[in-house]
Amino acid sequence: MLTMTSTLERAARTFGARPAIADARTSSTWAEHTSRVRRAAAILQSHGLQPGDRFAVMGLNSHLYSEILHAGYWAGLVPVPINHRLAPPEIRQIVDDAGCKLLAHCNAFAKVLATPELARLKLQPLNLESDYERRLTQTEPLAAHDARPDDLALLLFTGGTTGRSKGVCLSHGNIVSNAMQVALAMRATQDDRFLHAAPMFHAADLLGNAFTLVGGSHAYLPTFSGDGALAALRDRQVTVAMLAPTMIIMILQQPNLANYDLASLRLIFYGSSPIDAAWVRRAMTAFPGVDLQHNYGLTETSPILTAVDPAEVRAIFAGGNEAILLSAGRPLAGVDLTIRDDDGNDLAPGEVGEVVVRGPNVAMGYFNRPDETAAAFRDGWFHTGDMGRLDDNGLLFLVDRKKDMVITGGENVYTTEVEAAIYLHPNVQEAAVIGVPDEKYGEALFAVVVPVPGKAISIDDIVEHCRGRIGAYKIPRRGDIVTELPKSAMGKILKNELRRIYAGRETKF
Amino acid sequence: MLTMTSTLERAARTFGARPAIADARTSSTWAEHTSRVRRAAAILQSHGLQPGDRFAVMGLNSHLYSEILHAGYWAGLVPVPINHRLAPPEIRQIVDDAGCKLLAHCNAFAKVLATPELARLKLQPLNLESDYERRLTQTEPLAAHDARPDDLALLLFTGGTTGRSKGVCLSHGNIVSNAMQVALAMRATQDDRFLHAAPMFHAADLLGNAFTLVGGSHAYLPTFSGDGALAALRDRQVTVAMLAPTMIIMILQQPNLANYDLASLRLIFYGSSPIDAAWVRRAMTAFPGVDLQHNYGLTETSPILTAVDPAEVRAIFAGGNEAILLSAGRPLAGVDLTIRDDDGNDLAPGEVGEVVVRGPNVAMGYFNRPDETAAAFRDGWFHTGDMGRLDDNGLLFLVDRKKDMVITGGENVYTTEVEAAIYLHPNVQEAAVIGVPDEKYGEALFAVVVPVPGKAISIDDIVEHCRGRIGAYKIPRRGDIVTELPKSAMGKILKNELRRIYAGRETKF
Repeated sequence: MLTMTSTLERAARTFGARPAIADARTSSTWAEHTSRVRRAAAILQSHGLQPGDRFAVMGLNSHLYSEILHAGYWAGLVPVPINHRLAPPEIRQIVDDAGCKLLAHCNAFAKVLATPELARLKLQPLNLESDYERRLTQTEPLAAHDARPDDLALLLFTGGTTGRSKGVCLSHGNIVSNAMQVALAMRATQDDRFLHAAPMFHAADLLGNAFTLVGGSHAYLPTFSGDGALAALRDRQVTVAMLAPTMIIMILQQPNLANYDLASLRLIFYGSSPIDAAWVRRAMTAFPGVDLQHNYGLTETSPILTAVDPAEVRAIFAGGNEAILLSAGRPLAGVDLTIRDDDGNDLAPGEVGEVVVRGPNVAMGYFNRPDETAAAFRDGWFHTGDMGRLDDNGLLFLVDRKKDMVITGGENVYTTEVEAAIYLHPNVQEAAVIGVPDEKYGEALFAVVVPVPGKAISIDDIVEHCRGRIGAYKIPRRGDIVTELPKSAMGKILKNELRRIYAGRETKF
Repeated sequence: MLTMTSTLERAARTFGARPAIADARTSSTWAEHTSRVRRAAAILQSHGLQPGDRFAVMGLNSHLYSEILHAGYWAGLVPVPINHRLAPPEIRQIVDDAGCKLLAHCNAFAKVLATPELARLKLQPLNLESDYERRLTQTEPLAAHDARPDDLALLLFTGGTTGRSKGVCLSHGNIVSNAMQVALAMRATQDDRFLHAAPMFHAADLLGNAFTLVGGSHAYLPTFSGDGALAALRDRQVTVAMLAPTMIIMILQQPNLANYDLASLRLIFYGSSPIDAAWVRRAMTAFPGVDLQHNYGLTETSPILTAVDPAEVRAIFAGGNEAILLSAGRPLAGVDLTIRDDDGNDLAPGEVGEVVVRGPNVAMGYFNRPDETAAAFRDGWFHTGDMGRLDDNGLLFLVDRKKDMVITGGENVYTTEVEAAIYLHPNVQEAAVIGVPDEKYGEALFAVVVPVPGKAISIDDIVEHCRGRIGAYKIPRRGDIVTELPKSAMGKILKNELRRIYAGRETKF
């Protein structure tokens, strides 16, 4: 069945003697891993949790994180992974909203429970690194809760990029369907080893389930660093990693990159934010023989919707079309994807509109938010809030978040297009373009730019640089030069935050 | 979405310019093929068919067969493929049972409509080889019926091996789920070309949908012959074929086998009845570099449940375990498979019981047969009627059909085990073992044997040969030597038919 329980049970029965986890900290077979999960499920139950109950999880990436998620599924409970970079009041809001009764955590986050915000929620603590191993050995395994594909499996709160967090309800069927879709797109096999490099509280980590499905194995990177990732890729003989573009850039910036033997690596799956084609080319050169597969997805789609066929990327070297590097690829099997205008009409290839999708991986809705659910999930279609277009070959090109689009003097401006032009300036390290209120034009374009360390740049330089590259009405005339941009855990620039900062501020230019 | 409509629409949009059909008769891209399907759907609708209506299909394998099935899905209709080897009264029973309003057919079967049995059903004829092309060009394409994954998509009547035909109700979700499961197991890609070698009225043909899902292409073999199959594999540059064991044997018996350049072929998927390991070894030698992947499935499971990992078969050459050749493999992703006794208890590895399954590919039930549906589909599990065991590594070994098992003197005898022993006699070409009524033992074992052409064999020879190879109580003491065994369209020996023939007959031995 398309449930997490069934997926794990099958892995134990089908691939029992094969490696499940091959980590610096521990290694186990699928039989051993499943045996631990079954006993961890009994521990959760011993805390008084009943099928359907939610519990929070806070931890660095590790096999324990995976274990406690699966233990939750096994017992019919609903794990709620928490972004540990949030402040205590934000964590309190999520834990409260989800109605969590327990917090499973690693040592690193034991203190969070003691903060005044969380203390008053009276959560039961379950420290996965203290007394847990002893309890595991002394606990009898639990029989699996017989979950159905339509049962709620996981509550994932979306990050800070879209205002107040909403809990996305993912069913067992959602997660396993996407695992199948991703396994097909990645051509996952039991010989694969997946590195959990992105934080495990993030939807991107669901990709790992594709490898559980086919009997591959897992390795975990507790916290991300360029050299740490390289060492893990080499030492754990990783074949596939999901990396955010900022992670790829950090790896490529390691001075001793060439010293790492990454012979096992076959595929880097990347997404979540745009990356300059030059970086992709640099990665292709640094990792010869490794496929780079760009994807696009959202928490609400469990998470992957589209992916590029690696063969088309490889074809660039044989004179193929380099435009593929800018594309998010094509819908995965089972995903219906269309581009619609604000009146719900399907648009023709080349026309820009909202990306609207349906499929077995589309979430059930938002937890306890009927209005927001009704607004986004309409007539069986999920409205992503992303603006994009399809080309004649069915390739998706994203142009902007719908709410990041700026309307200035009656013209729609996609800020990512403006940013792409600014990025071409050699002294620009990072850039974000937002709309700020403007008396004359309704909104005006505003650029926030981080210069390359040691280099100087001004907004005038930017204006000059953009002239001729993009239409005059797309050129930001105002802006700010800063040393850092606010970012989410996956490296997404937080434009909401920038809008808040610059909304009322008088700026010089 | 997990619908056939969505699958075809995605193929047209995603792989539009790539080949869909590459056949001796025609070739078309996914865009062209889908355009034809949309107009064929309009033709079906012009005959007065409404969403939910059934129509019969009778044809030799061809792109037209595929086209009319997809046209049915597109219009929200339910195709009912007919086994054209059945006699008119049997066809009448199926068409009547399904309530078909129209029969789409190729030239070869135009006469069937005129038989008295079918004439009185007053079916509308739709000849796909007469005036159809003109109608297609003059018809406007139909907008797709917005099918849901749980909607009935296809009615497949099970063959004559199990008594009177029953219509198996397959939903859109059933078929597409299995296409995904099979695509994963076969590692299907858009570079694959699938040869429709098995008759398209059979559930085995549903495998082709795995290649539609990933944007591969199709070729069709109108009627099977050893040299015809070899020519098609070569000329159409086929990469994957599904072959029944009898088909593999026919191909291997071609005297000029070595003259065919089959460089494109990468995978032979085979199943539906046991094949001697010696033949598999011969096939491995005849087709170096080609993977042989044994599978197991039923019409009720859309159709594939288990498959062997080709890597394990390849490993035989490196000293791996040859027992894998006798196994049906492991459950596909999303399939729960267990072995149960008659009281519904799960059995341990090694113990023989009924194969019981659940998963997204398990059919909705039998058409208009609530009692038979309730008997086979219980508590969310489908009872296959096949007897088997799992080993410690999760490999399935089938031992018999439940109703083919013979109980003689209180002992369970799996007839396939007895047959395997008989097959080791050099003069035996084919053999089937059944139970016949016996006054003393309840049932007695009865062997029906086809000798190798030009060789002689007697039942005494068989008894002598089996002694020491299998337990004495498993040795058939009675039997018959014949020139041919009754078989289904997929080459399955019809034991029901043998039981009918030999039930009341006095036999000499």
